[in-house]
Amino acid sequence: MDSLTRTPTSKDAALRQRYGAAVPPAGPWNEVIASLLQHRSVRGYKPDPLPAGTLETMMAAAASAATSSNMQWWSAIAVTDPAKKKVLAEIAGNQKHIEQCPLFIAWVVDMSRNQTIGDELKTEFATMPWLETWLCACMDVSLAAQNAVVAAESLGLGTVYIGAMRNDPLRVHELLGLPQQSFVLFGLCVGYATEKAVGEVKPRLPQSAVLHHERYDASRQAAERQKYDEEMTQFSARHELAAGTWTARVKNRLAPMASMNGRERLRGFLKTLGFELR
Amino acid sequence: MDSLTRTPTSKDAALRQRYGAAVPPAGPWNEVIASLLQHRSVRGYKPDPLPAGTLETMMAAAASAATSSNMQWWSAIAVTDPAKKKVLAEIAGNQKHIEQCPLFIAWVVDMSRNQTIGDELKTEFATMPWLETWLCACMDVSLAAQNAVVAAESLGLGTVYIGAMRNDPLRVHELLGLPQQSFVLFGLCVGYATEKAVGEVKPRLPQSAVLHHERYDASRQAAERQKYDEEMTQFSARHELAAGTWTARVKNRLAPMASMNGRERLRGFLKTLGFELR
Repeated sequence: MDSLTRTPTSKDAALRQRYGAAVPPAGPWNEVIASLLQHRSVRGYKPDPLPAGTLETMMAAAASAATSSNMQWWSAIAVTDPAKKKVLAEIAGNQKHIEQCPLFIAWVVDMSRNQTIGDELKTEFATMPWLETWLCACMDVSLAAQNAVVAAESLGLGTVYIGAMRNDPLRVHELLGLPQQSFVLFGLCVGYATEKAVGEVKPRLPQSAVLHHERYDASRQAAERQKYDEEMTQFSARHELAAGTWTARVKNRLAPMASMNGRERLRGFLKTLGFELR
Repeated sequence: MDSLTRTPTSKDAALRQRYGAAVPPAGPWNEVIASLLQHRSVRGYKPDPLPAGTLETMMAAAASAATSSNMQWWSAIAVTDPAKKKVLAEIAGNQKHIEQCPLFIAWVVDMSRNQTIGDELKTEFATMPWLETWLCACMDVSLAAQNAVVAAESLGLGTVYIGAMRNDPLRVHELLGLPQQSFVLFGLCVGYATEKAVGEVKPRLPQSAVLHHERYDASRQAAERQKYDEEMTQFSARHELAAGTWTARVKNRLAPMASMNGRERLRGFLKTLGFELR
């Protein structure tokens, strides 16, 4: 293990990093769980190439995730061409780490591959135009990609998901030569983090704010959020970030339409690409 | 490690199990990746309880997954009450493993928690009614749940996702006391697999059918699918399954509306629960 896992990985230290003061009861532990807990998104990469076969190992991990009815609704496009990464970085609002990282993976909701089977068999696939089927495909892609992330991080690599591929889905679609009934759900940067970009593990909401027993119970929510606001205020101060509390960040992200960067057009774009979402 | 990981975990053996004859180039390897490759869905559980703190460890893993803009759009309901699991099993078309497993987790797309902040601040959250925002929430849930699955499997536990919670989202919603703007995306059974339920690792499509370089390339697709059809025919024969080829399974799953089990109503259900998906 390397730079990304050099911070203390004892159970207690890992839980404290992830939850701040609101440390949950300690459960079973092993190296896999330690690796999961160490996740942070990396937005600065060294030019160092990846070890041979890294992409293929990530793909094997991705293929091992559960997939709804074994439909395997995903494809991945590995992008290393600097010119292509430059365009993708522009589409994503100039995220320089897309240019920097030695490997960029575009994760594709690919309903085209299975549609081809219907076309060949001259059989109408009546389930295709429905929201439910598209949702299954989006989940398949997400589970596969997360397994690939877990594999990469276990090898000491850094990653960051790039949702901003959805800022301009048609341009991404054309750039990568995708067929109808497919689109890039998100991108993923992969590479070795620069010294500066190995950030601190970000605290999350206390477990009692997200974990419920038998029934949903919102009664503790306000108190838990207050604790988390204090945690995030300290985190923000350590990182010289503007919005102090989580409450302020949620407001800044969800109130103004401008924060969508045009993604309110997603539904229309998807229609153009052959997704009805009935 | 226990029963679920007792099969050979050498790199070559693991890749052969996952890909059959179409073994991809061998890349880097470690215990985390070995654990990922060993995944299979488990549909039969011993009554044995989980080690203390297992749920909390799974939640810490889930919380460690990336989340879009740190919005943390997920909640989880841990269900152990036999009566409640029985109803959930019925909703899911009598999947007995939901009753058997010692722990069932309902994974919730929870836009209610952040909406509450808008309500308290008397601020309109203009980004909430859009498909894009809901999609972010569905991805957040998927990434979190997959981390929890990886953690559970590393502890020798079996899991299976239950998409059939979406057969009747309103009944699930009521049973678990969920608020508006939340719904159960899927369930997850967790427990120790019975001897009989430790299935074989299921082969997936060859890497060359799903992995593309720089641009999408469908030229090898037909040939790759033929290879996979042969692999799945052998797998089906070993497990006495009806549909031999993958092609036949895809047709059986995607052609008839009946295979949706009513999930074509998802969009309407979501509207009732406060999701506009504009």
